[in-house]
Amino acid sequence: MQTTQKNRVAVLLGSEHDAPLVEGAFTVLQELDIPFEAHILSAHRSNEAAIRFAEKAAEEGYAVLIAAAGKAAHLAGVLASRSLLPVIGIPLSASLGGMDALLSTVQMPNGYPVATVAIDGAANAALLAAQILALGDENLSFRIQERRKAMAEKVAQADERFHRSFTPNR
Amino acid sequence: MQTTQKNRVAVLLGSEHDAPLVEGAFTVLQELDIPFEAHILSAHRSNEAAIRFAEKAAEEGYAVLIAAAGKAAHLAGVLASRSLLPVIGIPLSASLGGMDALLSTVQMPNGYPVATVAIDGAANAALLAAQILALGDENLSFRIQERRKAMAEKVAQADERFHRSFTPNR
Amino acid sequence: MQTTQKNRVAVLLGSEHDAPLVEGAFTVLQELDIPFEAHILSAHRSNEAAIRFAEKAAEEGYAVLIAAAGKAAHLAGVLASRSLLPVIGIPLSASLGGMDALLSTVQMPNGYPVATVAIDGAANAALLAAQILALGDENLSFRIQERRKAMAEKVAQADERFHRSFTPNR
Amino acid sequence: MQTTQKNRVAVLLGSEHDAPLVEGAFTVLQELDIPFEAHILSAHRSNEAAIRFAEKAAEEGYAVLIAAAGKAAHLAGVLASRSLLPVIGIPLSASLGGMDALLSTVQMPNGYPVATVAIDGAANAALLAAQILALGDENLSFRIQERRKAMAEKVAQADERFHRSFTPNR
Amino acid sequence: MQTTQKNRVAVLLGSEHDAPLVEGAFTVLQELDIPFEAHILSAHRSNEAAIRFAEKAAEEGYAVLIAAAGKAAHLAGVLASRSLLPVIGIPLSASLGGMDALLSTVQMPNGYPVATVAIDGAANAALLAAQILALGDENLSFRIQERRKAMAEKVAQADERFHRSFTPNR
Amino acid sequence: MQTTQKNRVAVLLGSEHDAPLVEGAFTVLQELDIPFEAHILSAHRSNEAAIRFAEKAAEEGYAVLIAAAGKAAHLAGVLASRSLLPVIGIPLSASLGGMDALLSTVQMPNGYPVATVAIDGAANAALLAAQILALGDENLSFRIQERRKAMAEKVAQADERFHRSFTPNR
Amino acid sequence: MQTTQKNRVAVLLGSEHDAPLVEGAFTVLQELDIPFEAHILSAHRSNEAAIRFAEKAAEEGYAVLIAAAGKAAHLAGVLASRSLLPVIGIPLSASLGGMDALLSTVQMPNGYPVATVAIDGAANAALLAAQILALGDENLSFRIQERRKAMAEKVAQADERFHRSFTPNR
Amino acid sequence: MQTTQKNRVAVLLGSEHDAPLVEGAFTVLQELDIPFEAHILSAHRSNEAAIRFAEKAAEEGYAVLIAAAGKAAHLAGVLASRSLLPVIGIPLSASLGGMDALLSTVQMPNGYPVATVAIDGAANAALLAAQILALGDENLSFRIQERRKAMAEKVAQADERFHRSFTPNR
Repeated sequence: MQTTQKNRVAVLLGSEHDAPLVEGAFTVLQELDIPFEAHILSAHRSNEAAIRFAEKAAEEGYAVLIAAAGKAAHLAGVLASRSLLPVIGIPLSASLGGMDALLSTVQMPNGYPVATVAIDGAANAALLAAQILALGDENLSFRIQERRKAMAEKVAQADERFHRSFTPNR
Repeated sequence: MQTTQKNRVAVLLGSEHDAPLVEGAFTVLQELDIPFEAHILSAHRSNEAAIRFAEKAAEEGYAVLIAAAGKAAHLAGVLASRSLLPVIGIPLSASLGGMDALLSTVQMPNGYPVATVAIDGAANAALLAAQILALGDENLSFRIQERRKAMAEKVAQADERFHRSFTPNR
Repeated sequence: MQTTQKNRVAVLLGSEHDAPLVEGAFTVLQELDIPFEAHILSAHRSNEAAIRFAEKAAEEGYAVLIAAAGKAAHLAGVLASRSLLPVIGIPLSASLGGMDALLSTVQMPNGYPVATVAIDGAANAALLAAQILALGDENLSFRIQERRKAMAEKVAQADERFHRSFTPNR
Repeated sequence: MQTTQKNRVAVLLGSEHDAPLVEGAFTVLQELDIPFEAHILSAHRSNEAAIRFAEKAAEEGYAVLIAAAGKAAHLAGVLASRSLLPVIGIPLSASLGGMDALLSTVQMPNGYPVATVAIDGAANAALLAAQILALGDENLSFRIQERRKAMAEKVAQADERFHRSFTPNR
Repeated sequence: MQTTQKNRVAVLLGSEHDAPLVEGAFTVLQELDIPFEAHILSAHRSNEAAIRFAEKAAEEGYAVLIAAAGKAAHLAGVLASRSLLPVIGIPLSASLGGMDALLSTVQMPNGYPVATVAIDGAANAALLAAQILALGDENLSFRIQERRKAMAEKVAQADERFHRSFTPNR
Repeated sequence: MQTTQKNRVAVLLGSEHDAPLVEGAFTVLQELDIPFEAHILSAHRSNEAAIRFAEKAAEEGYAVLIAAAGKAAHLAGVLASRSLLPVIGIPLSASLGGMDALLSTVQMPNGYPVATVAIDGAANAALLAAQILALGDENLSFRIQERRKAMAEKVAQADERFHRSFTPNR
Repeated sequence: MQTTQKNRVAVLLGSEHDAPLVEGAFTVLQELDIPFEAHILSAHRSNEAAIRFAEKAAEEGYAVLIAAAGKAAHLAGVLASRSLLPVIGIPLSASLGGMDALLSTVQMPNGYPVATVAIDGAANAALLAAQILALGDENLSFRIQERRKAMAEKVAQADERFHRSFTPNR
Repeated sequence: MQTTQKNRVAVLLGSEHDAPLVEGAFTVLQELDIPFEAHILSAHRSNEAAIRFAEKAAEEGYAVLIAAAGKAAHLAGVLASRSLLPVIGIPLSASLGGMDALLSTVQMPNGYPVATVAIDGAANAALLAAQILALGDENLSFRIQERRKAMAEKVAQADERFHRSFTPNR
């Protein structure tokens, strides 16, 4: 996992229309300087291509696969059944508030887990991928740590700002 | 669709444990004298076999595919993405009362419908298959009609029995 | 099922207001060159007309009935109880995200299946009807196949476009 | 509504198997001395009989119709669409805790209300029928009042018993 | 129930803000020429007034009480516990799509039914009240019948319009 | 709040049948030596008594009211609308897994909060009452603290036991 | 609890973006003249700060802690596990209509109650805090009482206005 | 990640009572020869210990943390907020079919993902951990592959058995 080659993440979308919902993943991966590629692959409309991608993913240097899909979201499951790489599923809120996609993604049968994140939780999917890659990459681990600190710092600043301006009766 | 060859139904189960939940389908198919075969095929544990089955189903003479699965039920979806035959999905109540299987089965994306029946509705899946086959088979159509009449007759008898014995104050 | 006469689909709506939600079905049926007719028939406001339609549907040459309704969607059930033709139900998202219509459509009792598609899944209802009709119509089967190929092709093109433009760090 | 003739309630069940779930209605109707009859009538398996019953119900002297059904419970809706009498629906907990039957019963479209009571709430359905009949029957009104008093009395006695025996530290 | 005095309906709202959601009830009651009055009464903010209203409702000539409320909708229950008149509950969709109001209204305990109609189903609540009042008022019964016919006529016209203009390939 | 008089909690149940579900509250109150009384009071079957209790609760020395009820659980709301004391609601799992009771208890309108605890969370209701009372009672505060320590100690012991016996490959 | 020092409420938010959803709490606390402070504290992004706050809250004079958070809302739980003060949880409707936040807030395990109010029920959270504080503060109790009276008065005025203008046929 | 030291998994339970629900994880980890330890750590009853564990987990050689909890399941979230290691969450079906635990586990806010598996999906949690560890351990990767093959083989055998014995009419 030490070679840059292997530290790659694939972000796979069921449809081009879902791209805006997944931008958070791209931002996080770029911030953390993690090489990735993105593809449109449909569990049903391009099932063959999805399987081909999953089966070659490991040897092409991917370490983690992220799949985003809505409704009866099967894409993550297809990848999970055809690759040994950890698969992260992002349920999208295309209908029923995303409850259908959540259940279709997370309720996988014995033997084929999908690491499911929150509905529309693209940024977290990327972070989870980063945390997995960081197990073999101390520099990345350090970058995630720094990102967390910055986030905590922002919360502290927001707290100060908020405490001052919104607390009415001091 | 007139040859016996083509009038065959496939009943596919995600797991051997689900067999008791699907018995209703076998009973109906036998009652209506519809040739069928049953297989254990898992969307994830034997994805390759499931795809192979789907792709050859038409030329092997199957006309309708019935798939029963629980939780994140993807089996019907796999078949639908790899065959032009009508696919009927039976969501099984393995968890959450079957709500997860229902949504995973019915909420299919554009282009790949699954004809979903009730949770644990195996008998209805077989009847739906029969109604589809009956479009090209008048004898079968007649048998379904007779079955319906018998059912209505039973309801009428139950009504009489019930009306007499349960109605207290006549 | 070979005569044009018989290859007809009926698309039935509970209310004129639902027409926009069902347009996807018309588009697909036209694309696939399947003769169809559309009617406003309400399970409750015009129950008699709905039953009359269902009972004459087969002899008038219809092969598949599609019913779209929201809330306590009973239209598909009415048709299913009065015709032997396969009935496809489209639950519409008029309230509760369509969960009420989905359950009212799919949870049919033993003996009277409704082939339920996704909430607001009008296009898929039409495709399911097409797949059923295609069992006895090789030309239609070919047209569906071509449509699928075109769809897969579009996904492949979308993938290329997306892979190039959205993948940031190549 | 003053003649005994008219003060009749019909309790209609979708299936003989549901009889135990509806016993509470019989008990209440007998306690309140309200003439009633009970029938097995299925929205789908005996749709014709159900419609015939609904259409003649008023002239046969029924004033209120109670319908109990589970899953995609359409029986109350069928009656409501074919009779002007108030229709009370009891959703039965045959699946999904009765949520499917509740939504199929209560979410009726404009023009055709079903007075829905609690899931498995047979006793309350009978009471609601009684309260409706009592609008034109002072004696019945008095009997309901007495029943309520007895009930409140029982709660008061239960309170005393409970307060004494379960309150530990007095 | 024959005197005009007694044929009155009360439409009670938990809050002035809910008035637009309940307009359908006013329209129906006016169309059917049923005398009614409307009040803002809160189960919690004016519990005393609500109880006072319920306890005097019968002697003030009301025959049916309609209560509309959202969220943890208790208003119908308050009225039901303090009056023998039939109480109709309209769950309003103030949050969770109205699921909270539906369950708070319909799941009443033994002894105190609330006749629940659809979420935001104000028009149906008024119609249900009308059907109850019509048990003792043949003229009203006739007016409801006429209204139904007009509605069926409208559906038939909509069907014609739709069938002509939306059916593409005739 | 310092006098024993005032430190009293009332535990109110909608029905005697619910007593076993509420035992956890009695145990906690006894462990923490908090004087309490228990009553059967129904929001609907004994609405008057419930209101009388609520209105006198403060002057009778109660400081916190706990109400447990299932289905369309209105008891806590009744108390909240008639007393200024904090009211704690325990939703009971009588139907739908307790979801109906939870929503009926927690979704209170503006002005009348009910402090809702988990479904069947009787012990926690008692603890919440204790924490409220402890604001004016340092000894009670100390007892709660000790109870927490004992609980943490038990978890630590369970951990040791578990870690030794269940961890297989050390 | 008599000193002003102790009568303080803390309103804690998981994120600055949630501030508008919580304004109702500030308004109520100001109306009732209850000293309070507000902070941004995240259960996860600033877990340490949240714990530090909870552990010092009692000695810094806080009597009640209010925590508002959406999605997998853990903030109230963090505070409850680290302080003996009563913790009030406001589930925010950031996704799934707030159902996720409601369940994450209310379904606390034995030993650590969170007093949960309605989804987005900020005003009620403040009122609940006020009712708790009022147990030891008669003046506050009086102010809450006055506020309630004013509210009831407003309902009465709304009723008059509504009754006059919206009741059509008087 | 190559040293045995680092390849360790921690399986953490909120309560000793949950042990039977998590056995599937132990079985899988033993089958795949992955060193692991198991602990009882409660998000609330032993929050300090949970945090201490999380903060030292990386340096003690853990690579993946698995947390199983029911109801308002916060344990995985606590670990995620205090460690950079990937955290896998198993929602347990203690109430509401596990829907509360699922939402409390999966709907994590931005910055702190929890890799959620199916309700009661302990075996899959272990497999997901294994797949993550296998990124840096070819032998483990091979063992997972073999396990999958064995599983597919079992499905094939079940299929044969089932096809022979359950297919009635060959």
